Amino acid sequence: MSDSGNERKISRRKLLLGGAATAAVVLVKSSFGKIVQTSLPESSGVTADPTKILGAFPAEIGTRSSFEKLVKKPSFTSSRTPLQALYGTITPSDLHFERHHAGVPLIEPDGYELLIHGLVDKPMVFSLADLKRFPSVTRIAFLECSGNFRTGKMEMSPQDICGLTSQSEWTGVMLSTLLREVGVRSGAGWLLAEGSDAAVMTRSIPLRKALDDAMIVYAQNGEAIRPEQGYPARLFLPGWEGNTSIKWIRRIEVGDQAYMTREETSKYTEEVKGGKIRQFSFDMDARSIITYPAYPERVERGWIEIRGIAWSGRGKIVQVDVSTDAGKNWYTASLPGLILDKAHTQFKYLWYWDGGETEILSRATDETGYVQPTMQQLIAARGESMGGYHLNPVTAWYVQRDGQVFHRPER
Amino acid sequence: MSDSGNERKISRRKLLLGGAATAAVVLVKSSFGKIVQTSLPESSGVTADPTKILGAFPAEIGTRSSFEKLVKKPSFTSSRTPLQALYGTITPSDLHFERHHAGVPLIEPDGYELLIHGLVDKPMVFSLADLKRFPSVTRIAFLECSGNFRTGKMEMSPQDICGLTSQSEWTGVMLSTLLREVGVRSGAGWLLAEGSDAAVMTRSIPLRKALDDAMIVYAQNGEAIRPEQGYPARLFLPGWEGNTSIKWIRRIEVGDQAYMTREETSKYTEEVKGGKIRQFSFDMDARSIITYPAYPERVERGWIEIRGIAWSGRGKIVQVDVSTDAGKNWYTASLPGLILDKAHTQFKYLWYWDGGETEILSRATDETGYVQPTMQQLIAARGESMGGYHLNPVTAWYVQRDGQVFHRPER
Repeated sequence: MSDSGNERKISRRKLLLGGAATAAVVLVKSSFGKIVQTSLPESSGVTADPTKILGAFPAEIGTRSSFEKLVKKPSFTSSRTPLQALYGTITPSDLHFERHHAGVPLIEPDGYELLIHGLVDKPMVFSLADLKRFPSVTRIAFLECSGNFRTGKMEMSPQDICGLTSQSEWTGVMLSTLLREVGVRSGAGWLLAEGSDAAVMTRSIPLRKALDDAMIVYAQNGEAIRPEQGYPARLFLPGWEGNTSIKWIRRIEVGDQAYMTREETSKYTEEVKGGKIRQFSFDMDARSIITYPAYPERVERGWIEIRGIAWSGRGKIVQVDVSTDAGKNWYTASLPGLILDKAHTQFKYLWYWDGGETEILSRATDETGYVQPTMQQLIAARGESMGGYHLNPVTAWYVQRDGQVFHRPER
Repeated sequence: MSDSGNERKISRRKLLLGGAATAAVVLVKSSFGKIVQTSLPESSGVTADPTKILGAFPAEIGTRSSFEKLVKKPSFTSSRTPLQALYGTITPSDLHFERHHAGVPLIEPDGYELLIHGLVDKPMVFSLADLKRFPSVTRIAFLECSGNFRTGKMEMSPQDICGLTSQSEWTGVMLSTLLREVGVRSGAGWLLAEGSDAAVMTRSIPLRKALDDAMIVYAQNGEAIRPEQGYPARLFLPGWEGNTSIKWIRRIEVGDQAYMTREETSKYTEEVKGGKIRQFSFDMDARSIITYPAYPERVERGWIEIRGIAWSGRGKIVQVDVSTDAGKNWYTASLPGLILDKAHTQFKYLWYWDGGETEILSRATDETGYVQPTMQQLIAARGESMGGYHLNPVTAWYVQRDGQVFHRPER
């Protein structure tokens, strides 16, 4: 939620004085003068009143307003959702974050096949049409990269800090349905999931998760999943670190133990205290972020609706607390929208800002009782050299006297 | 849900015979040969195996796969959502139906203003930033044109028959919040809502609806609403005929009676029996449509998951019945997803098609007890000359012996 890059004052609400009807009619004429029809030829001489010009015809496909500049700030390996510029809980598909290990392969849907083999009774290959023919499931859930934390300077937006989380309505087939089809043999305990990108991305998945809520998804927000999300089909493991939800999935092997792939030995592990390494840290811990007001927003004195999202890989969000005095006092925010399992959940808190310098923070609690920690608590639990994965600290926004909001770096 | 235009057989599931592990590895090599990397220079001589080529880098903004052809089949005044090609319940914003009375005006957001005046204590003008500063509300709901019914030939898809309904996650401010701000005077009973398009589209809205669940929305599916949906702000009246949800809204006048505009006298009324006219028929009645299988789909003998959507402007869908024998027997479908107020609701019914000629139908019931009528029932209630609005008949799909599915026209 942002008018960033927009220099105008936020609160221009006008109180019309005088007799309502007459004053209002005058106002209609004057106050709509700013509505422009920019598709008009500049030399046409026609008034810029849109009610005088036939508008554009319906189109084969809609397009975003040219006034809305939304970008994912891509690097060579990832791109980030502009959380501060979004509303509600669904991430537009073209703004879903990306994280690839060797880019986005181009896969022809008619040639797509998924092999399931290994410790199964009947190894099988499923075409995309096969996958769509099975009973389908639709659910709204977030997807988050395990390396979704950056800090270090004041000029950082929610997109910069934690833009590697996005939410979609996913549709596909339960992996358990496919596993029932091939017949998992006794002794099976793990699956190897393999993508068809140039990294041949592979992860070991416990059979328990595969039989619980794992899906092979082929649709996102009403349409086929986007190429950068695994078109034409990907694994989706709700609540688990994003890299395990193998995109462009081509092969699932059922085995009796973890496969110890590159992505779970040299990467996606975390150092913890005592020189130990935490492996298979799949669950994304509960987290929240205030998305309004946040950098680069500038606010005005008065009532401000603090808005944000909270989520947990372990279930539902049950509470979000907000502090408007740098953590001294905490107040329970409202959760006014849908509260879904493993889903971005909106929170809101109405705050009267008196114009003083302060910090605002949010803290999520999920249904397991887990409370989002501070960075100090994370360091205390894991030690200083804990690496860059699974960092979900309470994040503070510093509000200057002039209303400018900045990130308050963690250290 | 469709592979329309796709000539390949649907069911190509392969059963691999022989020793699982060895056979499977061979299969990996052979069965992925069809996966192509078409971004490769044709002369490069590199194998078409995507695992051998670095894929595309992350982008500023995502794009739909070039293999997915989704269009809204526009006319000069409307365009239709391809319901048969969609999954889940959210309509991608660029596939939301359109219905304009004088095209899509181009409105600069910084100049946007909404005037509320008339029988109020303080007539006021709200900028877009003002609207966003108020407490916000997010809800998933459908929007449907009151003229959402076509029939007459067999080669009609769900898009052709009833593609003037779409669903979004809408975010905005409650109209009741704005009305509290201006102070509605006693004696007020109706509002006039006016758009800034070249039709200066106007409708009278009962104050009761304005204070119930009416919203001024500025966002749709996570981002700013699209130009063709009223950018930068529109009225949204959940469950009511679409034309009352005035797009590009610029003015709301509070009055003591209906304004009797062109759109509620010469249009958007229905003839009923006895030469009478039904006016202010706002609620969209409960309805359902099977979206799979549907024309132009062709199915194969065996298990088929019949899928569709049901919705009601009066509340939640409580039941959908499906018949697979032309209406002789009816079975209760499952409603496996979210069941939300005034929202497209998924229904599913698993059917074994024995290859015989038949008709499949669906029938929705909402929480008020209203049951979706047949066309014969609509004619009996309203008479033959009932016009083209608020027609929500049970719709049948004819399944030929060869699996080709056709619309069964109503008469």
